[in-house]
Amino acid sequence: MEKEKPIGVFDSGIGGLTVVKRVASALPTENIVYFGDTARVPYGSKSNATVVEYGLQDARFLINKNVKAIVVACNTVSSVALDEIRKKFNVPVIGVIEPGAALAAKETKNGRIGVIGTRATVNNKAYSSEIKKINSSIEVYERECPLFVPLAEEGWIRHKATYDIAEEYLKELRELKIDTLVLGCTHYPILSGVIQEVIGKNVKLIDSGVASAEVIKKELDRVDLHTNKYSSGNQEFYVSDLPTKFKEVAELFLGQEIKLVQKVDLETLTS
Amino acid sequence: MEKEKPIGVFDSGIGGLTVVKRVASALPTENIVYFGDTARVPYGSKSNATVVEYGLQDARFLINKNVKAIVVACNTVSSVALDEIRKKFNVPVIGVIEPGAALAAKETKNGRIGVIGTRATVNNKAYSSEIKKINSSIEVYERECPLFVPLAEEGWIRHKATYDIAEEYLKELRELKIDTLVLGCTHYPILSGVIQEVIGKNVKLIDSGVASAEVIKKELDRVDLHTNKYSSGNQEFYVSDLPTKFKEVAELFLGQEIKLVQKVDLETLTS
Repeated sequence: MEKEKPIGVFDSGIGGLTVVKRVASALPTENIVYFGDTARVPYGSKSNATVVEYGLQDARFLINKNVKAIVVACNTVSSVALDEIRKKFNVPVIGVIEPGAALAAKETKNGRIGVIGTRATVNNKAYSSEIKKINSSIEVYERECPLFVPLAEEGWIRHKATYDIAEEYLKELRELKIDTLVLGCTHYPILSGVIQEVIGKNVKLIDSGVASAEVIKKELDRVDLHTNKYSSGNQEFYVSDLPTKFKEVAELFLGQEIKLVQKVDLETLTS
Repeated sequence: MEKEKPIGVFDSGIGGLTVVKRVASALPTENIVYFGDTARVPYGSKSNATVVEYGLQDARFLINKNVKAIVVACNTVSSVALDEIRKKFNVPVIGVIEPGAALAAKETKNGRIGVIGTRATVNNKAYSSEIKKINSSIEVYERECPLFVPLAEEGWIRHKATYDIAEEYLKELRELKIDTLVLGCTHYPILSGVIQEVIGKNVKLIDSGVASAEVIKKELDRVDLHTNKYSSGNQEFYVSDLPTKFKEVAELFLGQEIKLVQKVDLETLTS
């Protein structure tokens, strides 16, 4: 039955697990299928054409797992390939950028929003253009933070070096008097403690995962596709490569134990 | 003519440019063709089967550029795929691990060697097993330093965070009283100033690029393939993707200006 199908979530790697955490928290009885394209991570440094191709393959994989909706938990794919995925597949498709941008635009009081992300996300100005669509008078300041991803994967969530690096990356945004900061990369919620401390406690942090989870919830309302189950949903995890320490890092991101991860051959994706 | 063919050097990304610098310094009249697989970097987190496949594709690209010898300036490929590349292609193939291990074994006085590298290199224990082959009584201590690569690419060669991170990574090795430390990743020579300071000035740092350059020089002696030219060699650079800030970072690694970089389509590699 349509309602009992799982929600699909994909990312270029493991960062999207922070989004799974938020979706599972917002919709605890839904089943979730996750795919992380760990063999081809990162997408951020690839050309737009390649990102579209990979995004379509990732979505196809989830469609073959019979999902009722797709959350694109990858900022790069969300900024480049969302239209193509929506055109190709006949299920609701939710990105992370539109919900994150909308929530930031709603939260800001002084009309000054900061966005931090990978080099690719910042260069694409994806959040800026979404926020400007909602309210063109909002000032948006974007800053790339390349070291945050490896720091999150090290699990150095309170390390002195993390503070030093956050200080270096965030001091300009602090001086620009932003009152809202978008965590524009699915890895960054892992470091939200340090980021909040360094940017100042008066700045509201926007976790795109939280925003996306709210949007998928509303979308399931709209199309009347909520599960009828009352028990906890199951989660299935697929990756295209199983790097060392995968389980340890993945569990830090997901916030709970991962019982089973299955490796998918790239040939399955590309064929 | 065979002698006038270039030397090929490849890496998963731009780290191998530190090896090009060393090869060019040891053999200034040779032409060099470099390939950096920047579209698929990093290799370290990929499975061995994937690394072998990519390594063979990278070597094939250089062979098609008509090289007379190949330097595999990538620790991951050197530890996993060297035999396969040697079997497949009929030119001398030099890795970075054997030369680095041999030089370290030669340099140590107290028989205690440290090795730092990416997670993959350390997990493979590639340097340990090479050093033990040479002298089984040498103690080898390996430590992964995942943040050193993004720190080098940020160009933070004297940043406070770099000292903090080096302190965290190196304190155990310092306590273990090593007298020789192998920089088991081609990015690390960029950070050698900080590493030397933190590990202590009595510890000898081994740059595998320097060691490999000496080995390729001897190999060209052996097979009598030195160029007859007296003028400076040319260098050609190819990458599979052109990330932002590429030129800036690449020039930091190479230690000189890069005039021309050409982008290669992944289809060219995989076909």
